[in-house]
Amino acid sequence: MELDRRPAVIDCDLHNELPSLETLFPYLPDYWCDYIRESAFVGPDANDYPRGAAITARPDYRPGDGRPPGSDLSLLQSQVLDVWPVEVGILTCVYQVSAVHNEDLAASLATAINTWQAEHWLAREPRLRASIVVPSQNPELAAREIDRWGSHPGFVQVLLPVRSAMPYGKRHFDPIYAAAVRHDLVVGIHYGGAPGNPPTPVGWPSTFLEEYAGMAQVFQSQVISLVIEGVFDRFPPLRVALIEAGFTWLPSLMWRLDKEWKGLRHNTPWVKRPPSAYMREHMRWTLQPLDAPPDPAAMAQILEQMESDELLMFATDYPHWHFDRPEEAIPAGLPEPLYAKIMSENARRFYRL
Amino acid sequence: MELDRRPAVIDCDLHNELPSLETLFPYLPDYWCDYIRESAFVGPDANDYPRGAAITARPDYRPGDGRPPGSDLSLLQSQVLDVWPVEVGILTCVYQVSAVHNEDLAASLATAINTWQAEHWLAREPRLRASIVVPSQNPELAAREIDRWGSHPGFVQVLLPVRSAMPYGKRHFDPIYAAAVRHDLVVGIHYGGAPGNPPTPVGWPSTFLEEYAGMAQVFQSQVISLVIEGVFDRFPPLRVALIEAGFTWLPSLMWRLDKEWKGLRHNTPWVKRPPSAYMREHMRWTLQPLDAPPDPAAMAQILEQMESDELLMFATDYPHWHFDRPEEAIPAGLPEPLYAKIMSENARRFYRL
Repeated sequence: MELDRRPAVIDCDLHNELPSLETLFPYLPDYWCDYIRESAFVGPDANDYPRGAAITARPDYRPGDGRPPGSDLSLLQSQVLDVWPVEVGILTCVYQVSAVHNEDLAASLATAINTWQAEHWLAREPRLRASIVVPSQNPELAAREIDRWGSHPGFVQVLLPVRSAMPYGKRHFDPIYAAAVRHDLVVGIHYGGAPGNPPTPVGWPSTFLEEYAGMAQVFQSQVISLVIEGVFDRFPPLRVALIEAGFTWLPSLMWRLDKEWKGLRHNTPWVKRPPSAYMREHMRWTLQPLDAPPDPAAMAQILEQMESDELLMFATDYPHWHFDRPEEAIPAGLPEPLYAKIMSENARRFYRL
Repeated sequence: MELDRRPAVIDCDLHNELPSLETLFPYLPDYWCDYIRESAFVGPDANDYPRGAAITARPDYRPGDGRPPGSDLSLLQSQVLDVWPVEVGILTCVYQVSAVHNEDLAASLATAINTWQAEHWLAREPRLRASIVVPSQNPELAAREIDRWGSHPGFVQVLLPVRSAMPYGKRHFDPIYAAAVRHDLVVGIHYGGAPGNPPTPVGWPSTFLEEYAGMAQVFQSQVISLVIEGVFDRFPPLRVALIEAGFTWLPSLMWRLDKEWKGLRHNTPWVKRPPSAYMREHMRWTLQPLDAPPDPAAMAQILEQMESDELLMFATDYPHWHFDRPEEAIPAGLPEPLYAKIMSENARRFYRL
């Protein structure tokens, strides 16, 4: 695969990591700075990149000064933006304010981290766009945060963790969708979250392997909820990106949902077209980490079964370690028009870049 | 599709329904009969076949005397067993004793319903086999019930609802697997259940359509748990049938599990082979309700991606209404050797019929 003949790359999942909770102190009200100092609160993401866990980050992605991988702009520039080279990179700061049970603290942390994103990332690198971190456990407060940044040209997305205590299709979350539509922002649903309830429909698993592999089922539950509970009927312009979700489960879910919708659509009269039509119109999926089969022929079958070449968007998931050389990030043997769509065109259109 | 050239049919999902809770009175201790009369307890399955809900049962499947569909042996004989004709039919009585929070009552109901199955179904129709109903919420009591029937030649399976309060891979459930292996019985995991926790990893959905379509994710979570928590390493002879689970999600789950197992297998050193190898060796999936695509070519791709022609077993899911004519129960265009395997050979071998 010759990379030099394929210049346009949009990377839809670049993690910018907070160096430490103290980084936010200049942006936090005194009350919360005192609270954090007094309570020994370490923040929700203190253990995202354990040193010994190989797949979290390549060794050379770590700044080497104790800060976590993904926290250094110059490394992001030299290790990703300048490599392909990248036309636009979308930051997905997964600082889990949604896991902070004090909603006021969560809201203040969100404002602080978004201010830090604007100052330390967007203002310093024109190729970057960012995702608004919101306290999604309180949709009214989340909508206020979206309104705060909605007119900033650098923010293109509202970020939600895929795990939640309530399905995202419930009207409870409508203030978030209304605010996203008001500002023409994508809602990005990203791997992870810690809402307190188990990550499977049958209780708590024992190992990280189960939780990690099982996150695909959490995404599927959210897709079902969003479509069937009518979010796209209530908010027709809404676009939702599924980030780090995998995508080979898409055909199976589309077939099942379309079939059962035919028999049970009197449950949900607002869903006027087959669910797969909503998915293809309103949703997109990022590429990495690939859940694709080792066999390129099977990968081609999956892409064909999705019945659309507009659903996938390139992403590296930097600084997580899914591949060693850039060309390994992309499934082998993609035909050229599809390749161009996945590498940049689909994202450019979806995010209006 | 010429049915007369294809005589051998084994139907792996025939629902025998209890006419009413009172049917069990002859088999219940006086204490529980009194309790049921005094408490107005209607049993866990009183609303399984609402009259107006079309897909629950075809109108002609209802006995017409107020008893629920599936409760009449002569109708089962004339509407299924004599039609194909069926060589062996496996009863899956989904009476949800696991949803009864009083575990002693649940255990007594299980014994009563299994006695009723032996007397009213197995003793009267030699083509039938049955599934042992167990109080799975208490694995010790469940194991006692399995031991009670394990040497009865008519019982070939222990039935568990796919929904549970704890993942089935946890050692909590080991007494059930030990008993199943002791008696060389299959463990059948069937659609449904009502353990009390939500049927999705993100809380309670609003509609039955979401719950019904989403049951595929519950099955996927249980498959992950069974394989990754090492049930098949602790019980190497164990066989598990997934009933009414769909199966087009299998390739995607296999790819993802195999890939992540490679990176995270130090979490679970007991899992010595790729997870898909355990799935192909120890698990089987029933055919109906089909979650297959409308396009036969896509169906052929899915079957190919499963990398085994031994995983699917024919089932009608009688008396639920998924098709009108027998030939519609089977995906179109299956090649002959695969057809024979799905229609009978796979089940004959798996259930040792």
